[in-house]
Amino acid sequence: MPALGRLCGEIRQFLIQTVSKAGGHLASNLGAVELSVALHRVFDSPRDKFVFDVGHQSYTHKILTGRYEAFHTLRSEGGVGGFPRQAESEHDAFIGGHSGISVSAALGIAESLRLSGCSSKTIAIAGDGSFTDGAIYEGLNNAGKSKANLLVVLNDNGMSISKNTGALAAYLSNMRTSRKYYEAKIATKDFLHTKPLGKTVSSAVSATKQLVKNTVYYKNPQGNIFENLGFKYYGPVDGHNLAELIEVFELTKLIDTPCLVHVKTKKGKGFKPAERNSGEYHGVSARALAPTSPTYSEVFGREITRLAEADENIVLISAAMKYPTGCNYFNDRFPERFYDCGIAEGHAVTFSAGLAANKNIIPVFAVYSTFLQRGFDRLLHDAAIEKQHIVLAIDRAGMVGEDGETHQGLYDTAMLSCIPDVTIFSPANDRELRECLRRALYEIEGIAAVRYPRGVAAVDNGQSTVDSYVLTARGAYAGKLAITYGRLAERIEGDCDLLRLVQIKPLPEESIAAAMGYSDIIFCEEGSERGGIGEAFLLELVRRGWRGSYDVRGVTGFVPSASVEAQLGRIITPL
Amino acid sequence: MPALGRLCGEIRQFLIQTVSKAGGHLASNLGAVELSVALHRVFDSPRDKFVFDVGHQSYTHKILTGRYEAFHTLRSEGGVGGFPRQAESEHDAFIGGHSGISVSAALGIAESLRLSGCSSKTIAIAGDGSFTDGAIYEGLNNAGKSKANLLVVLNDNGMSISKNTGALAAYLSNMRTSRKYYEAKIATKDFLHTKPLGKTVSSAVSATKQLVKNTVYYKNPQGNIFENLGFKYYGPVDGHNLAELIEVFELTKLIDTPCLVHVKTKKGKGFKPAERNSGEYHGVSARALAPTSPTYSEVFGREITRLAEADENIVLISAAMKYPTGCNYFNDRFPERFYDCGIAEGHAVTFSAGLAANKNIIPVFAVYSTFLQRGFDRLLHDAAIEKQHIVLAIDRAGMVGEDGETHQGLYDTAMLSCIPDVTIFSPANDRELRECLRRALYEIEGIAAVRYPRGVAAVDNGQSTVDSYVLTARGAYAGKLAITYGRLAERIEGDCDLLRLVQIKPLPEESIAAAMGYSDIIFCEEGSERGGIGEAFLLELVRRGWRGSYDVRGVTGFVPSASVEAQLGRIITPL
Repeated sequence: MPALGRLCGEIRQFLIQTVSKAGGHLASNLGAVELSVALHRVFDSPRDKFVFDVGHQSYTHKILTGRYEAFHTLRSEGGVGGFPRQAESEHDAFIGGHSGISVSAALGIAESLRLSGCSSKTIAIAGDGSFTDGAIYEGLNNAGKSKANLLVVLNDNGMSISKNTGALAAYLSNMRTSRKYYEAKIATKDFLHTKPLGKTVSSAVSATKQLVKNTVYYKNPQGNIFENLGFKYYGPVDGHNLAELIEVFELTKLIDTPCLVHVKTKKGKGFKPAERNSGEYHGVSARALAPTSPTYSEVFGREITRLAEADENIVLISAAMKYPTGCNYFNDRFPERFYDCGIAEGHAVTFSAGLAANKNIIPVFAVYSTFLQRGFDRLLHDAAIEKQHIVLAIDRAGMVGEDGETHQGLYDTAMLSCIPDVTIFSPANDRELRECLRRALYEIEGIAAVRYPRGVAAVDNGQSTVDSYVLTARGAYAGKLAITYGRLAERIEGDCDLLRLVQIKPLPEESIAAAMGYSDIIFCEEGSERGGIGEAFLLELVRRGWRGSYDVRGVTGFVPSASVEAQLGRIITPL
Repeated sequence: MPALGRLCGEIRQFLIQTVSKAGGHLASNLGAVELSVALHRVFDSPRDKFVFDVGHQSYTHKILTGRYEAFHTLRSEGGVGGFPRQAESEHDAFIGGHSGISVSAALGIAESLRLSGCSSKTIAIAGDGSFTDGAIYEGLNNAGKSKANLLVVLNDNGMSISKNTGALAAYLSNMRTSRKYYEAKIATKDFLHTKPLGKTVSSAVSATKQLVKNTVYYKNPQGNIFENLGFKYYGPVDGHNLAELIEVFELTKLIDTPCLVHVKTKKGKGFKPAERNSGEYHGVSARALAPTSPTYSEVFGREITRLAEADENIVLISAAMKYPTGCNYFNDRFPERFYDCGIAEGHAVTFSAGLAANKNIIPVFAVYSTFLQRGFDRLLHDAAIEKQHIVLAIDRAGMVGEDGETHQGLYDTAMLSCIPDVTIFSPANDRELRECLRRALYEIEGIAAVRYPRGVAAVDNGQSTVDSYVLTARGAYAGKLAITYGRLAERIEGDCDLLRLVQIKPLPEESIAAAMGYSDIIFCEEGSERGGIGEAFLLELVRRGWRGSYDVRGVTGFVPSASVEAQLGRIITPL
């Protein structure tokens, strides 16, 4: 045990050193060191299956399973990924980038093993933030009635990325402050352990199992929320006490049906700056503390706050991303008009549609492109059919760099394009973002989306427009045109004119008319080629009788971790 | 009260007569008659807002709010819709076609009213089936901590469409058999009511509120699952006892924060055949009991069962749609390999991906096209990135007729098209469905989808193919080609050749080569035009140097209730 304790200390130092260089999720990983070490001490990966929910607590797991040497390549092109992936290691039993999926996935894995007669345990490790996500609940509801050899570890640090919200957070907090569940159960277990069983090992284990089942876990018929859902509940356990963790995990080895262990951890544990402000250290960027120009998120956050000064009907909604999306400015000024829904993007969309249904409130939902995917049906069914006027501020649209394929913002264009009557803006700098936001709020009916990329906002260089597109003549050969939108425009070089769309849906009629004069067109798209804007533009051209050479350079596969510029380079090879 | 009882009897008779003629949801509506009458007796619509979850229990509400005279037009073109819609009546506060959204939407509405200083109550009425949906949980978790003047009515008939499943179902069933919550609370209320308050009405109400809050609702700190989430819980109440219903709803009028009333009802109440087999009477088709040829659902259900005889690795997943999707045949034969996940399509996708992750099991998820929309992010993130081999049997793909815009299967093509490496088949008859299913299981990697429409399966007339497309020369004018897929093919008439795609993604290379020889092409698509197959086909043609006339006739807006043939007619006006 002292050796394991030293190991934890070494891993923690290693994490602090590596992540501060490579960038990545520091605080959540620092909180999960002992938890990961204890799980690997007790269980046998890859025979037992580890499934991380939002895998940004999986670094210790990665270090312990063969990726220590390569860990300095964290999140770099071709290096160790920031999230678990089967393709990376047999010890990663499932992909983990988005929240809430671990119990469903682990249940599937556990059932597939059970059907094959394998007695492995499948372990889902999920943070309390994921428990604000309905996905977890669907998983628990199905797992609780199953016979799956499943262990769910609730890594409860009392916050998702921002401070955790919702009734469940209060409920968990209440459970956290009580140790009675754990103490009662451990006491019974100790009693069982001290009994001279006087049998062979296997029958002893079997007898113990039965005793454990009958004596301990069915004792409290009222139960807590997890017991109500059919789980055997253990906890809360001190997530930084190795002995306690190992003891409780050993206990769950005796049970081959669904268990939940509630572990209390401290985000950022062992690194004072991260302990004090774990939100700030949630994702550490490699460039760290260099002073920079405002990001698009900040431009959005300040502008929506400014607009809300003049319009009391504007409310702002976030799904556990208050700081990363710049909603903090609004929340500071108008806390009563800010809603943090937790990691529940589906709810956030329908809640927004409900807010809009009486035509008095204008809800603005600030969300990452990749996470908005979770609201597709809600947008289509709850918002679009009845033309509820909601504004989507789509952050991290396009390539996101080192977070890799699970977090790319490449599908919002295709997803929103097929929904009738949606308007989409794609500003290319700070001033256009402000202008598009104003138009989305006041000139559009139904769903209005403004999408902008991760990172520092381009500063208006006089090329901003209040129009829906801008055509720049710059080619020597007059017949060639590049069409694009967003930040790609300033990266496209070559002997051609350039049509930059600001409104990408519906396509501005005049932009199509302008393109009709060219015979050789290439549409460059920082988004999915299939279902994207380039295909739609071509159909509109051909419908109007245009004949010529046309190609789309967009994204056709999943884009792995690399720098944003390298990722953009996949699209804009020289024209 | 006797008058109200007679009213309920009359409504029930009226429902049985009307629905058996017009088609529609009989059993669920028969179960909600007294509940709806009591709610309208106590609350004041449209001042108070009624939000129905999966609105197929809203018929009594519709009859009571001005739609009695027109009710014989139920579900017909231009008639009273099968689901609530704001556009239809000011008494329908929100659209309700998909499950699980009512609490989120009602919370939004309640907050928008609160922000405007309005004291109306917003009422979400949701069946217990919706409580297997994570969406409800996200809504409850957010509502429970809010100050919204919100009443959630849990209409608990112990089943969703098929028999309800999951740990929560068992938990609710346990609650159903106990009346202690209700009796304890009603007793306290009676005690309060008999106290001489001796004050003005308004201060009396205020004092009563405070007493009610302090004395009754915070009594049980352990609470049940709803109390844990921050709701004041009342129930279970007999959902066919008007006096009891009115009493409890009056009680909730005293509270201006979130309450949940748990109502026990009997699906099909008052109509013996529907009481005995409410699953069969869930959706009553106008054509009723006429013997018919097998539907696509039945063809699928029998074929997957046959295939599973030979392959023990096939498992079947449903999201509360065992009978409607034909999964009952499989369940009868292989109950241990069938999973009904409840109304939790997101979970079902991730669970399938988990089942597939060890490469031993082939999961088949049978799901309506419209409900698969709820799994978009799961397909993209959990299944596609790591190429998990899951098979989607997409039922009700295309126009669905009288269910109207909320249930159209018009977006699966666009949604799946933008996901990398998905294969989609669109068979046009029974034999092709069987063939495509076999190919999806055994010839494809990653996500393989087979989509087929609602209703009676076309019978192989010798035009079936095991190829990915079939080209029929039939035009006198050789330059004109119609391209399509699925059942549209047999409806396209005109002086043109016909290219019918069976595999619609990826596009078969030979089909593009075949189309290159035509100068005048029209692509007819029973699905969204934007992001659909027609746009992709055009791009592939133009990339290969094709120049000509091309148009897509697909779906561009929401398609309201009408017969399927009328809906298809919107696409295939004569070529």
